[in-house]
Amino acid sequence: MPDPDPDPGPGPGSAPGAQPFKRARSHFADRITADGRDGWPVAAGRYRLVASRACPWASRAVISRRLLGLEGALSLAIADPLQDDRSWRFTLDPGGRDPVLGIRFLHEAYDARETGYPGGVSVPAVVDITSGKLVTNDYQQITLDLATEWRALHRPGAPDLYPEALREEIDEVMAEVYRDLNNGVYRAGFATGQPAYDEACGDVFRRLDLLSERLADRRYLVGDTITEADIRLFTTLVRFDAVYHGHFKCNRFKLAEDPVLWSYAKDLFQTPGFGDTVDFRHIKLHYYRVHTGINPTGIVPLGPDLAGWLTPHHREELGGRPFGDGTPPGPVPPAEAVPPEGRP
Amino acid sequence: MPDPDPDPGPGPGSAPGAQPFKRARSHFADRITADGRDGWPVAAGRYRLVASRACPWASRAVISRRLLGLEGALSLAIADPLQDDRSWRFTLDPGGRDPVLGIRFLHEAYDARETGYPGGVSVPAVVDITSGKLVTNDYQQITLDLATEWRALHRPGAPDLYPEALREEIDEVMAEVYRDLNNGVYRAGFATGQPAYDEACGDVFRRLDLLSERLADRRYLVGDTITEADIRLFTTLVRFDAVYHGHFKCNRFKLAEDPVLWSYAKDLFQTPGFGDTVDFRHIKLHYYRVHTGINPTGIVPLGPDLAGWLTPHHREELGGRPFGDGTPPGPVPPAEAVPPEGRP
Repeated sequence: MPDPDPDPGPGPGSAPGAQPFKRARSHFADRITADGRDGWPVAAGRYRLVASRACPWASRAVISRRLLGLEGALSLAIADPLQDDRSWRFTLDPGGRDPVLGIRFLHEAYDARETGYPGGVSVPAVVDITSGKLVTNDYQQITLDLATEWRALHRPGAPDLYPEALREEIDEVMAEVYRDLNNGVYRAGFATGQPAYDEACGDVFRRLDLLSERLADRRYLVGDTITEADIRLFTTLVRFDAVYHGHFKCNRFKLAEDPVLWSYAKDLFQTPGFGDTVDFRHIKLHYYRVHTGINPTGIVPLGPDLAGWLTPHHREELGGRPFGDGTPPGPVPPAEAVPPEGRP
Repeated sequence: MPDPDPDPGPGPGSAPGAQPFKRARSHFADRITADGRDGWPVAAGRYRLVASRACPWASRAVISRRLLGLEGALSLAIADPLQDDRSWRFTLDPGGRDPVLGIRFLHEAYDARETGYPGGVSVPAVVDITSGKLVTNDYQQITLDLATEWRALHRPGAPDLYPEALREEIDEVMAEVYRDLNNGVYRAGFATGQPAYDEACGDVFRRLDLLSERLADRRYLVGDTITEADIRLFTTLVRFDAVYHGHFKCNRFKLAEDPVLWSYAKDLFQTPGFGDTVDFRHIKLHYYRVHTGINPTGIVPLGPDLAGWLTPHHREELGGRPFGDGTPPGPVPPAEAVPPEGRP
């Protein structure tokens, strides 16, 4: 995958350079499908999802996996939030190696797939456990496939996160949210000049204003249940006050200052499968220590106060059925619990 | 005056260096007094106050001068918010020269006072117009002397900003606010390592919490009228969300998120003599463009939204007599009005 990667590490994507920030397309876009047409059939225990809890793109997949109850079928590796010049590392694991893949750096799975691959190393990544090869780092497709192609392995009561009848609307909302917000905050944060920043930050807040209007009287973005669109909005909103507001200078207002968006984000945070995947410590460490181009001291701020995430949101009053005809996911597997220091 | 200066410019004080941030004492500490004992008697039209609207220390004097009605007796020079390597400049004035002092750089007045003075150049500075010599840059003393020594030149109805009977309490409050807040935000922002930052940011918010308690049921900090203590707290609070929260990483909460402090700050902002001296554009330009050590791109954020400064504060309900037995100051002299782009 060409630089910069979806969550730019200390490589060329991390620091303000001479070029405007442009997010690259995923290089490895094979799909894991029910019919295995790309050579990668859905199968329990065959693949490993590599994520960073810092990264909004990877966190989408971590949330989808929880909501769909795929924990037993698709195992999870959590990378250290601090990359070094070799990118994502398994330095949190005993001996500094992922216990299932046996590798120290995610780039080893990239190398196993394509010798001498010159692009960036990004999460989320799905790796074939037996061969050690990267299958896909296509962050836009991975969650859609978890929701649709992996159905045979979903838990009983799993929600339909990408319902056929609503796909057109979901896709449209996601495209706008991606352009202005998911990626807009990065365009603002990595802008190298005032005009590029001004445009990006303007996009971010214009989109937030529109979303605040849209969500004022409806509990979720599309339909009356949680969909992929909510997941993708959530992973940006949950990082907003912690990193995008200060570090990326998206500071017209804090999320906590917009009553609608703040309640919407708290509602999702307090829904099983969302907040229980979030590690604010990883988020802050990653952004503030890795992006030395915009934070040369590497100092990580004490704030924001996180207690508000657990306060009442009152969004039940809008109705909605979070999981549609399904049920909430069960508790987080103990081995995957976010440590207390990462929680509000 | 040894570096760093009270408002550190692009010199040694501006960027994170090897040493913890330590604010220097003012080097030129002559006093302008009623009896002229230091050789500088109070006299109408004799001196010029040089300030930057960006600088919290200089802004104290600009506010005091307004409240006391000294505009006619002590003229005001406003420096460009962007210093260069020659420090504060009169680049906002026609021809790049202060029209009264005839100089291009404030350092010329320092040089006139002491040849080859090797220290930093800081505002506020009071300059003797005829000789062109700097009299004092003692930011802690200048406002106290305006309040007490310049009485003969105060407007009718000028408040007593430093009443004898309350001085002990005022001095105590000001000392705590200085240590933890006025200077604490700088210690946080210019910290070169995590421990120094953590300590400073902890001080800032411990003090804000205490001030929020103190001000919950009293309108002003000491007594029931505006005093020097309020001026010194205000000049830090008015900059808090615009620069200290993001740029200096003092981000446990925004001022706008603390109902007591936010109402207190809005009350003062809306009081003649306070908000009418504030130029948010100068404030943001200065901090974000001059401190390249912590903001290498020099990008100035779009936020925060300033409209809230003009919303109702309801602090009249606490009683208090803003100007005691005196009256509010009249309107700002047209030549000194803050341009619209600097106002909420």
